[in-house]
Amino acid sequence: MTSAGATSAGAEPPLRRLTARGALTRDRIVRAAADLMHANGVAGTTMDQVVEASGTSKSQLYHYFDDKDALVTAVIKMQTARVMQVQEPHLEQLSSLQGLRRWRDEIVRFVDERHGANGCAIGSLATELSDRSEPARILINAAFQSWESYLTAGISRMQERGEIDRTADAATLATGILAAYQGGYLLSQARRSAQPMALALDLAIRNVEALALEQKPASGAVS
Amino acid sequence: MTSAGATSAGAEPPLRRLTARGALTRDRIVRAAADLMHANGVAGTTMDQVVEASGTSKSQLYHYFDDKDALVTAVIKMQTARVMQVQEPHLEQLSSLQGLRRWRDEIVRFVDERHGANGCAIGSLATELSDRSEPARILINAAFQSWESYLTAGISRMQERGEIDRTADAATLATGILAAYQGGYLLSQARRSAQPMALALDLAIRNVEALALEQKPASGAVS
Repeated sequence: MTSAGATSAGAEPPLRRLTARGALTRDRIVRAAADLMHANGVAGTTMDQVVEASGTSKSQLYHYFDDKDALVTAVIKMQTARVMQVQEPHLEQLSSLQGLRRWRDEIVRFVDERHGANGCAIGSLATELSDRSEPARILINAAFQSWESYLTAGISRMQERGEIDRTADAATLATGILAAYQGGYLLSQARRSAQPMALALDLAIRNVEALALEQKPASGAVS
Repeated sequence: MTSAGATSAGAEPPLRRLTARGALTRDRIVRAAADLMHANGVAGTTMDQVVEASGTSKSQLYHYFDDKDALVTAVIKMQTARVMQVQEPHLEQLSSLQGLRRWRDEIVRFVDERHGANGCAIGSLATELSDRSEPARILINAAFQSWESYLTAGISRMQERGEIDRTADAATLATGILAAYQGGYLLSQARRSAQPMALALDLAIRNVEALALEQKPASGAVS
C-alpha cells in the first residue's frame, strides 16, 4: 500500500495547511497509532507509545493532534481508507454472481493465509468505540454504510443485467453480506480458521444466488 | 440474573476451596471486573479500578487472582455464563422454524430496546482478546462452539421431526446463524439501530427456511 494511496483515500479536511514534510510526519504518526491501536486496542495505546513508535516527538504529536480523540479520529479515517482500498477494486466492478463469489474467495483466501488472525480493522474499532465515543461511532457507521453501498450497487447491477430478480431489496442483501463478513471474521479470529468466514459468506451469498433468473447471461456479463 | 445462576453456570474448578463468604467476595470482584471490562475494554480496565468498583481491597483481589490474566479468565467464564443463561432457555427447546423465528424476534426486541448499544459481551471479548491472549482465545472459542452446538441441536431436531431437509448440514447453518448474530450486533452497535441485526438474522434463517419440506408438521411440533 503506497503512502499516497492511503492518504488520499483517507483525506480529511486539513485544519491547517500542512507542508509536504508536515503531511509526512502527520501520516507517520497516524500509521504508528493505527498499528498500535489495532494490535493493542485504543484503550491499550498511550500517546507516549505513539511518539516512540512513530519516531516523532511529543511536541510534534500535539502539534498535529490536540488530544487522543483527535488522533483516534484520524486513525478511524486511515483504517477506513486502508480497508476500502482493498475492497474497492473487487467491489466497484461487481456486477455478477460470479464476481460476488470471486470476492468471497479472495476474502476467504486472505483470512486463511492469516489463520483468522487480525480481524477487520474497522470491525475492531466498531466494537471498542461504538458505545464509548459518539463521534467515533458516526465515522465508523459511515465507513460501514459506504462499504454496504458498494455491495448494494453491485447487486443492483446484477438486477439491471437481468441475472437476478429485480424485486429483491439490494440494500437488505448488502447489509446481510456485510454482517456475515464481520461476524464470520470474529468467529474466524476466535477459531483461528477461515472456515467460519467461508460458511458465513456462503450462507449470505446463497440468498443472492437464490434470486438467479433462469436465463442465459445477458451480453456484457462477466465471464 | 441471580448470583447463584451465574456462578453455577460459569463454574470453574476451584484451585482452593472457598468459604461461602470467600466465594461471594470472589464473585463480587469478577462481576465488577466484567462490567468495567465490558464498558471500557480489558486494556482500559486496571486492577485498581476493579478494587474500587468491587468495594474490596487490593490484598483480597490478589488473594483470589494472581494477576490480571487470571481475572480476565474468570471474566470470560462469567460473561459466557451470563450470555448462555439468556440464550439457553430459548435454544435448548428449539425444534421448529417457528421456534427459530421466536428466538430471532427476542434478540431483535432486546437489541431494539437498547438501540443497538452494548453489543455481545462474548463478541467484544473475542475482538479484543483473540489475537492477544491464546488462553483467552481458547475459552472464547469454546463459548462460541457451545453456543453453536445449541443451534446445531435445534436444527437437527427440525430435521428429525421432518420439518426440514435432512441432508443439509446443521452445523454449517448454525455457524452461519451465529456469524449473522455477531456481525448483525456489530453493525447495530455502529448504527444505533436493531435493523442490521434483524436483516442479518433474517438472511441467515432464510437458509434454514429454504429447507422446509412441504408436509404437515409432525405431531409434537411446537405450536
